[in-house]
Amino acid sequence: MDPKFLKRLIIPAQTKIVMIIMDGLGGLPRQAGGKTELETAEKPNLNSLASQSALGLTIPIGPGITTGSGPGHLSIFGYNPFDYEIGRGVLEVLGVDFELGPDDLAARGNFCTVDDEGILLDRRAGRLPTESSIKLVEMLRTIKVDGVEFFIEPVKEHRFAFVMRASGLGEDLSETDPLKTGVPPLPVVAQNSNSELAAKKVNLFITEARKILKDRHPANMIMLRGFAKFPQVPSYAEMFGLHAAAIAVNGMYRGVARLAGMDVLHVDGQTLADEFDTLEKNWMDYDFFYLHFKKTDTCGEKGDFEGKVKAIEEMDACIPRLMALNPDVVIIGGDHSSPAVMKSHSWHPVPVLLYSKYVRSDDIPEFGEHACSRGSLGLIPARHVMPIALANAGRIAKYGA
Amino acid sequence: MDPKFLKRLIIPAQTKIVMIIMDGLGGLPRQAGGKTELETAEKPNLNSLASQSALGLTIPIGPGITTGSGPGHLSIFGYNPFDYEIGRGVLEVLGVDFELGPDDLAARGNFCTVDDEGILLDRRAGRLPTESSIKLVEMLRTIKVDGVEFFIEPVKEHRFAFVMRASGLGEDLSETDPLKTGVPPLPVVAQNSNSELAAKKVNLFITEARKILKDRHPANMIMLRGFAKFPQVPSYAEMFGLHAAAIAVNGMYRGVARLAGMDVLHVDGQTLADEFDTLEKNWMDYDFFYLHFKKTDTCGEKGDFEGKVKAIEEMDACIPRLMALNPDVVIIGGDHSSPAVMKSHSWHPVPVLLYSKYVRSDDIPEFGEHACSRGSLGLIPARHVMPIALANAGRIAKYGA
Repeated sequence: MDPKFLKRLIIPAQTKIVMIIMDGLGGLPRQAGGKTELETAEKPNLNSLASQSALGLTIPIGPGITTGSGPGHLSIFGYNPFDYEIGRGVLEVLGVDFELGPDDLAARGNFCTVDDEGILLDRRAGRLPTESSIKLVEMLRTIKVDGVEFFIEPVKEHRFAFVMRASGLGEDLSETDPLKTGVPPLPVVAQNSNSELAAKKVNLFITEARKILKDRHPANMIMLRGFAKFPQVPSYAEMFGLHAAAIAVNGMYRGVARLAGMDVLHVDGQTLADEFDTLEKNWMDYDFFYLHFKKTDTCGEKGDFEGKVKAIEEMDACIPRLMALNPDVVIIGGDHSSPAVMKSHSWHPVPVLLYSKYVRSDDIPEFGEHACSRGSLGLIPARHVMPIALANAGRIAKYGA
Repeated sequence: MDPKFLKRLIIPAQTKIVMIIMDGLGGLPRQAGGKTELETAEKPNLNSLASQSALGLTIPIGPGITTGSGPGHLSIFGYNPFDYEIGRGVLEVLGVDFELGPDDLAARGNFCTVDDEGILLDRRAGRLPTESSIKLVEMLRTIKVDGVEFFIEPVKEHRFAFVMRASGLGEDLSETDPLKTGVPPLPVVAQNSNSELAAKKVNLFITEARKILKDRHPANMIMLRGFAKFPQVPSYAEMFGLHAAAIAVNGMYRGVARLAGMDVLHVDGQTLADEFDTLEKNWMDYDFFYLHFKKTDTCGEKGDFEGKVKAIEEMDACIPRLMALNPDVVIIGGDHSSPAVMKSHSWHPVPVLLYSKYVRSDDIPEFGEHACSRGSLGLIPARHVMPIALANAGRIAKYGA
């Protein structure tokens, strides 16, 4: 369905939608015929909600495709993920919670080791400790280049996030990492005329960095890659007529929500309970809330089946707080699967639950992969969830007469 | 999903995928409320495999569309069948197991009867017996036309397969069958300038054929139609990074597999057991095997319900041989439905089973139409099966971060 078609039908309403994303929610059983993480969890509140909901499975990107969290989120947010590419540099910068603007060019940076002739000896500067990296980043921050501003943030070990701000910066730049040692790092080359200014300024920055770091062996040079600008995505207000807020504690998810034009709310603390505090505190001020829960994915990626089960139980315990707010529509789902047995993201479709007064509920008293595969929402592209939620919220007008 | 997108994500792996196609697998019950052919069959091995698999139904072409085996195969092979048209002439020639090359122009040929003025009296030459046809084909083979080579193979009764080989032959040619008697057969006319050379040479061949057959009443003339070249289809190696082999005894399926760039293996015999011998013998040399079983379709088209049931049981008996090879991923499905009660191909979605270590199994202990309609693969375009199989085989990289 063309997003423009939906946009034409959007009407205002006094209803509230909550979308809870348990990152990497979908799982697998530990052995054939067993139960997944979600099926194993004791979750009376989610099960009770499921019995009043329509269930289904969402496909984040396409059949067989394992997605990262960026495209996975765009998709469950209701966008066609192929329409908006989130570059690697942008992800790195979002990860450190930097507020990227439309004039910003982001990149992934890292320290490396070169010899006196500038030949690359170690592409990661011996993976120097984060503490050393923090000090070196302070030095990089002193670099001045005419007409542009720089923002540099340490990430982990040899890595840092790099942002250059100025109007007229293109993003089509080659990378400086030659991907092998024994040769010098490459200069940045503009891939089209729009990006020539950016290439020139980045190369000036790198030259200065080399001078400043000269005596800082092994971190005596830098490399930059994954140049990208913040993609221009139509906002939730524009697309869906929603005044939307995001509740997330990790930079990357706060960034993706900002991409969708959501207000990213302050969370006082790091726990799920803190996130629900934020939800309650801001309940009257928005008509859409995205609430992100990272722990399910973290445990999935670590292979911690029990941890993921517990994370789901932690969410279950918060569901009464959600329902006490009397939301009109509740979506509970994920951006992708992260089965603990695979210790990674996976392509498996993701359980989703849609609750509202007007939903045709499936009377299936369980929220789980097998239950959802019998649900009436069916097996659907993740981006179809938002239009169904909007309909349940009385926010889509009739088409035709 | 754009095939180019998938191609970008393909990574190598040491895994093996087997795709077993039971031709015309899908069926219907003999009376309402009864069991289909697949549901009637005693098939303990397929049922046991089903209980460890994800089940679903595949739509070969589109809702309500009954497909021939050519497009049906392209689709389950993972291609968009609308991207690659397999012309009728090509199908006829593949059916006699001829190895069509890129310079070959294929057509369906048939003998017909004309009077002394060349007026068409019988479009099928009284459906003359195949034995007579074989002798007449020998005569056609003596025809020489400058700069081109001809290959002619008898098919059945009045029909033969026709191939003209030369570089620069176009395929956009009109047909010679006027589709009624009382008028002369038509000359071949090029539909564009690329096809003028081909038209000229074909017309010279037909003129010679008329001379040679003059005294061979009722088969004293020929007609040619369905001119087509072998479509240029990206290979399995190119699209999926797979070193693929095909095991099939009928020419047409061997041909369609060759279209996909598969190595078509020699089968010593005609039975399903012979095909499994070939699978075992070549197991170490490929990472993808397509194994085709014709009998299910033959029985379906004849209206032989019991025969189709028995054919499925014959396949069931071979499943232990398959599983003994320890394949990483197994697909068991069909190219289309051929319900015995309809005595023809049909539009009904086709049962499919996908087994792998990483599949989210449905715990449904039966392989059948009704069971598959409750499966977690859902009701999907047949071409989505291959990406899911590749994912299960660890052959698709993560998209985005």
